[in-house]
Amino acid sequence: MVTGLGARFDSIVESAGPLCVGIDPSSDALKAAGLPDNTEGALEFARAVVAAATPRVGIVKPQVAYFERFGSRGFGVLEIVIREAREGGLAVIADAKRGDIGSTMHGYADAWLGTGPLQSDALTVSPYLGFDALEPVFSLAETTGSTVFVLSATSNPDAGHVQRASIAGATLPALVARFARERSGGTNTVGVVVGATRGLADSGLTAADLDGLLVLAPGFGAQGASLADISTIFGGATKRVIPSVSRSVVREGLANMPRAIDHYLQELGL
Amino acid sequence: MVTGLGARFDSIVESAGPLCVGIDPSSDALKAAGLPDNTEGALEFARAVVAAATPRVGIVKPQVAYFERFGSRGFGVLEIVIREAREGGLAVIADAKRGDIGSTMHGYADAWLGTGPLQSDALTVSPYLGFDALEPVFSLAETTGSTVFVLSATSNPDAGHVQRASIAGATLPALVARFARERSGGTNTVGVVVGATRGLADSGLTAADLDGLLVLAPGFGAQGASLADISTIFGGATKRVIPSVSRSVVREGLANMPRAIDHYLQELGL
Repeated sequence: MVTGLGARFDSIVESAGPLCVGIDPSSDALKAAGLPDNTEGALEFARAVVAAATPRVGIVKPQVAYFERFGSRGFGVLEIVIREAREGGLAVIADAKRGDIGSTMHGYADAWLGTGPLQSDALTVSPYLGFDALEPVFSLAETTGSTVFVLSATSNPDAGHVQRASIAGATLPALVARFARERSGGTNTVGVVVGATRGLADSGLTAADLDGLLVLAPGFGAQGASLADISTIFGGATKRVIPSVSRSVVREGLANMPRAIDHYLQELGL
Repeated sequence: MVTGLGARFDSIVESAGPLCVGIDPSSDALKAAGLPDNTEGALEFARAVVAAATPRVGIVKPQVAYFERFGSRGFGVLEIVIREAREGGLAVIADAKRGDIGSTMHGYADAWLGTGPLQSDALTVSPYLGFDALEPVFSLAETTGSTVFVLSATSNPDAGHVQRASIAGATLPALVARFARERSGGTNTVGVVVGATRGLADSGLTAADLDGLLVLAPGFGAQGASLADISTIFGGATKRVIPSVSRSVVREGLANMPRAIDHYLQELGL
């Protein structure tokens, strides 16, 4: 069944644009929304985000950590949120940043891109164990039309302690992008995560490194980058960038989310 | 409450030695054990491993991916396994390889080292987003006497595609170890994961890099390294190495696990 984000990306952009809204029921976000810091609060919060996002945008991104902190009951809530968002026509990027080797990576692939209760349209993964180690998720993404976003350059200023590292003059962010292009071969199977806050050059990347790749770009809104600057930041790669906003969408209250999302759509020129 | 692996490491080694037994209910492992590939099978498998490990060893390491593949119900099983293992006196290393930034990393810290249903004695994390990004788990590990094992050099042969990268002549595995030593300051708060299969030199490490650190070392048994060679592999760092065996312990059947574990204890000279 080919239904993932990769297979649907062009039609999503045509109907709703590329904006992605994060679903981040952190302890702080629940408190600010006047909700209890428990699974009931997380479910109410997540449902409000999904309701505000539908049909304004085409993509949502639950941050798995904020559900995982409640253990199995938190995962139960996440399953409901993923299912309801997909039933409402949204593509779901599970922001899990998983990464392991061999049969263990198969386990993560099954969890997020298989037919189980967490089945999503895309997954974020971390490349520290190498690219070949991630092959089980790439294979399953290929079969299901999903997209695997590999962390390339992240939005936190201190990421350079690791991401400045290089092999034969190529930085890790550039190596990740190169690998993603090779593995994708022009499809949407493998994309990259590139934070919008630091700028490509400061991350050791050029727009050419991202050529043809789907790029998930957190860092807009609360983290500091403006959507109006997206083409300044990403240059020739802009057309395939999925900008993601999270905290800033909810910070004026759940009731104001539709207005906040509309504001970002205007900033994007949509 | 200070009860984690870091706080108890010396007494664990004194009473049971450093061997760690993995709890890996993969699809293949369940089939080989004649168990159904579902949550019931995973629970029966995990309980058999815990029973065989108690009191032969002091540490077990559930591989989170093999529970996560079943979604919330898999996490429900993992909660039972962690709780029962800890109630039986075992220290639990949650092998989750999580890694994110800021408040998201707080979520993972709360999930695995907080007082919730997944509370464990140690956690593995991935450093691609930088070291400072991991601070929320380090802080909580400090408070609870737990240990955070940061991936340094992993056991898969293709890890070099990323882990050969260097900054100013220092490879990523060496940078991770250096950071872990600085952050730990002689305590057991931050350790490292170093695979036993490739040898320190091939991973860009020396025994001195690991000086004073707790080292979680997968790669023994099925992955190829022999426990009899542990001091050849780790040199002066050997005394604080936690060797981990997983697949090889179960491959002759669940009923033969106690014998398999005894075999490894003999190989270790215990």
